[in-house]
Amino acid sequence: MGKADNINYESSLKLYNRAKKVITGGVSRNTIFRRPHPFYVAQAKGSYVTDIDGNTRIDFANNMASLIHGHSHPVIVDAVTEQMQNGTAYTLGSEVEVEFGELLVERNKEFEKIRFVNSGTEAVMSMIKAARAYTGNPKIAKAEGAYHGTYDFAEISQIAEPHNWGDINQPNSVPVTYGTPESVKQDVVVFPYNDIKRTLNLLEANKDELACVLIDPVSHRVGMYPIEEEFLVAIYNWTRKNKVLLVFDEVVTYRVTYSGAQHLYPVKPDMTALGKIIGGGFPVGAIAGDAEIMSVFDPTQKIIKQPHSGTFSANPVTMIAGKTAMQLYDRQAVDDINKMAEIAKHQIREAIQLAHVPVSITGAGSMFRFHFRYKQPRNYRETYQSPEERKVIVDLLDYLFIHENLILINTFACMFATTIKQAEVDRLTQSMYNGLKKYKAAILQFAK
Amino acid sequence: MGKADNINYESSLKLYNRAKKVITGGVSRNTIFRRPHPFYVAQAKGSYVTDIDGNTRIDFANNMASLIHGHSHPVIVDAVTEQMQNGTAYTLGSEVEVEFGELLVERNKEFEKIRFVNSGTEAVMSMIKAARAYTGNPKIAKAEGAYHGTYDFAEISQIAEPHNWGDINQPNSVPVTYGTPESVKQDVVVFPYNDIKRTLNLLEANKDELACVLIDPVSHRVGMYPIEEEFLVAIYNWTRKNKVLLVFDEVVTYRVTYSGAQHLYPVKPDMTALGKIIGGGFPVGAIAGDAEIMSVFDPTQKIIKQPHSGTFSANPVTMIAGKTAMQLYDRQAVDDINKMAEIAKHQIREAIQLAHVPVSITGAGSMFRFHFRYKQPRNYRETYQSPEERKVIVDLLDYLFIHENLILINTFACMFATTIKQAEVDRLTQSMYNGLKKYKAAILQFAK
Ligand SMILES: Cc1ncc(COP(=O)(O)O)c(C=O)c1O
Ligand SMILES: Cc1ncc(COP(=O)(O)O)c(C=O)c1O
Repeated sequence: MGKADNINYESSLKLYNRAKKVITGGVSRNTIFRRPHPFYVAQAKGSYVTDIDGNTRIDFANNMASLIHGHSHPVIVDAVTEQMQNGTAYTLGSEVEVEFGELLVERNKEFEKIRFVNSGTEAVMSMIKAARAYTGNPKIAKAEGAYHGTYDFAEISQIAEPHNWGDINQPNSVPVTYGTPESVKQDVVVFPYNDIKRTLNLLEANKDELACVLIDPVSHRVGMYPIEEEFLVAIYNWTRKNKVLLVFDEVVTYRVTYSGAQHLYPVKPDMTALGKIIGGGFPVGAIAGDAEIMSVFDPTQKIIKQPHSGTFSANPVTMIAGKTAMQLYDRQAVDDINKMAEIAKHQIREAIQLAHVPVSITGAGSMFRFHFRYKQPRNYRETYQSPEERKVIVDLLDYLFIHENLILINTFACMFATTIKQAEVDRLTQSMYNGLKKYKAAILQFAK
Repeated sequence: MGKADNINYESSLKLYNRAKKVITGGVSRNTIFRRPHPFYVAQAKGSYVTDIDGNTRIDFANNMASLIHGHSHPVIVDAVTEQMQNGTAYTLGSEVEVEFGELLVERNKEFEKIRFVNSGTEAVMSMIKAARAYTGNPKIAKAEGAYHGTYDFAEISQIAEPHNWGDINQPNSVPVTYGTPESVKQDVVVFPYNDIKRTLNLLEANKDELACVLIDPVSHRVGMYPIEEEFLVAIYNWTRKNKVLLVFDEVVTYRVTYSGAQHLYPVKPDMTALGKIIGGGFPVGAIAGDAEIMSVFDPTQKIIKQPHSGTFSANPVTMIAGKTAMQLYDRQAVDDINKMAEIAKHQIREAIQLAHVPVSITGAGSMFRFHFRYKQPRNYRETYQSPEERKVIVDLLDYLFIHENLILINTFACMFATTIKQAEVDRLTQSMYNGLKKYKAAILQFAK
C-alpha cells in the first residue's frame, strides 16, 4: 500500500503522527485503530465518509452501529441546532427527556420505566448494580465472549482464548484488563451461549448468589448468531424458578425490530440496557424495565437503594437527537432497512457461491457478520478466530477499505443505516466478491 | 408555596406527573430532583435559565459545575453547528480530537498522554482500572465522603453516616448501592481527609495490595476544603516509597487554575481524571498522565493490558465544544472568574456578619460551599449534615430557588460561570442575606 498504489493517505499519516504524541497509541478508542494508522474524517453525509486525503468510502460500520440514519441526517441536525439555542445541559429537567422516555416506553410494553445515562457501558453497569440492589446477591452470569462495555464485571471472558478459556463445562472467568481483582472474576459466572445443559448446571451451582443472568440476544462478539429460543426459554424459566433476574443488553440489538430483538422471543426480560442508535449520533445509554425493580433508583423512596446521577445523563441534546432519530425509525423504516439487509445477504451469498469460498453469514435485522466457516457458528468457541485467521480477516478488511473504499466493522461485520440503498448494496456485493476471490486460498486454510 | 405565593409552577408540575409515569421517580439524575418536584427548562442563555412556567433564575449551579461559560455560549454553539454538518461520530478518527488533546496536554506538563471517554464516571473507572493494570494490585484508597462517580469501587463511603462510618482510625467501607459485593468493599481502603497519621497507617497496612491512592484535591462532598499541602505531600512521598500510584480526580477541580487544582501543590499525580467543563456542555471524560502508565491502553503494544473503546469516546461534537470552551477559558478568563468568586465570597462574608449567623465558606477558584459551622470543616465528618440540619439547608435552598430565583447546588454550593458578573454577584449576596436572616434561628441550632 502507499503512494505506489496511487492511494493517498499522507494527511492521515501526518495527523496520526501528531496524535501519537498526545493520545496514548494515537486513539481514544481502539476500534478506530487500523493498519497502518487510523484514518481521519473530513466529511460525513448519509452513507458516505470522506477522509482528509479526499478518499470517499461507503460506511457500513456507522460508528459501531450507532448511526441508524447514517451521518448528519438533516432532520436530526436541525433539531439539535434548535435545541442548542436553549442550552445543552441543566441542573433542572427538560421536556424532551420526558417525551423521549414516553416514546421508548410506548414501543416496548416491557419497559415500564426508563432512565437515561451516557453510554452503553454506563447502562450495563447501572443495570448490573440495580440487579444486585434489588436481589441483594453479588454475582452475575454472562455468556463467554460477549461484549457488554468496559465495566470490569461485564468485561470478563470477552476475549477468552483457547489457552485460558478452560473446560467448556465450567469456562474460566478470564479478565480482559490486567490486574482485575480476583474477586471480580469470582463474582462472574461464565456460560457457553446456546448450550442449555451446561448453562443450567452452572446457574444451578451458583443460584443462591446470582443477581442476574445477562443476555445479549444477538451478541456481536459471540458470533452474531441469534440466541436460540429453546436456550433462552430454558434460562428464562430457570430465572423465574430461582428468583434471579433476566436482563438483556440490547445496546446494539434494539435496532433489530421496532421494539428490540426481545420481541423475536416469547420471554420478557426484567431489565434492558440500551444505547447506540437511541442517541441519534450523540452519547447515550438507558436502562429500562420492570417498574418495581427500577424503583431502586427512585429518589422519592424512603430508602434509595441505588442513588444515581450523572452530569450529562438525559441532557437535552442527546434527548432531542435520540427522539428525532427514533421517530424517523418507525415501523416502515425498520421494515425497509431489514429488507435491504436481506437483499444484501442474498446477493452476497450468491457472490460467496460464485467465489467458491466457505463463508457463512450470521446476524439479525439490519446487521450481519461473516465467518470463514461452512456452517454458522452458534457460540463463541465456534466463532473464535485464531491469530492466523485474524490476520487474513484484517488483510481482507484492509483491502476492502483501501482498494474498494468500504468501511466495515473490524470483526468483519456490517451494520446498516437507513441511508444504505440498492446502489450501496451492489457496491458491497461486488467488492465482497473481489475480496473473497483475492483471499480465497487463505480463507480455505481456516474453513471449518 | 404554590399559587398563594403568586408563584407559578403548574407546567412543571404537570410535566413531572407525565415524567413519573415513564421515568423512575421522574428523573434520570437524582441531582435534579427537588421538592415539590423538578422544574423544567424552556430557555437557558448565559447565566439565566427560564423554566416552562416563565420563571427566570440566575444559575450558580451550571449543570453541576460543567458549564464554565454558562448556557448556549454563541461561539460554542456555532462551532458545534458547523461540526454537525460533517457528522457527529465515526468509526474513524477526527482532526479535532488531536487538536483538543494537544491543547490539554499543553496546559499541563503532567499530562504526557491523554485519552477521552464519555463521563467523569467512565474516566475514574478507566483510571482505576489502569492503575490496577499497571501495578497488578487490586486495591484502591479513597477519602471518606468523596464523590467520584458511580463505579462501585469509587463510590464506597461516599454517603457514610455516623451509625455506619465506624472508628476514625479505620473507617468502614460503606457501600452506596445495596447489594454491592463484599469483595468490592474489601478492595477499597477508606481514609480520613487531611489526617496524615491515620491515613499513612491505613496505607501502610495495605501497601502490598494497593494500586493507587485516589485524591480529589478540593472534594466537593468532603467539604470543598482544599487538601492541605502537608497531607498531600505526605501521601505523595508514601506512594513514591511504596510504588503505589497517586491519581487525582479533577473532574470538578480542573477549573480552579489554568492547569487544574494540582498546580496549587508541589506534587505531580501519576494520572488525572477530567470531565465536566472540558466538554463545553457535552458529555465528556478524560484520563491524562504519565506516558508509561497510560501505555496500558495502547493498541499498538504487543500486550494490551487494558483494551478500551467506547462508542462515543472522543466524538467530534464533544471535542469541538470542549476545545472551543477551553480556548475561551484562557489564563485571563481563569483569573477573571476566580476574582469574581473572590468578590462574591467577600460580599457574602459581610452579609453573614450582618446577619449574625455562624456560616463558614470553603472552596477554591470559582467554586465555594457554605456550612453552618463557625470554622471551616476540614474533612467529611466535620462537614456531615444530620437529617435535621439537611432539612434546614433544603428549606433555605428552596427559598433561594422559589423566592429569590437563584439556582444553587443542592449541597449549598456555587459553581461560577464566566458569564457571572457583578450584577449577578450582588443578587446572590442580597438573596443570601435575606435567606440567612430568615432561617437564622434554625441555623443557630446546628452551629458547631
Ligand atoms: C452489546 C454492547 N453492549 C454495551 C456496549 C457499550 O456501549 P458504549 O460503547 O456506548 O459504552 C457495546 C458497545 O459496543 C455493545 O456492543
Ligand atoms: C469529583 C467528581 N468525580 C467524578 C464525577 C462523575 O462525573 P459524571 O457525572 O460525568 O459521571 C463527578 C460528578 O459530579 C464529580 O463531581
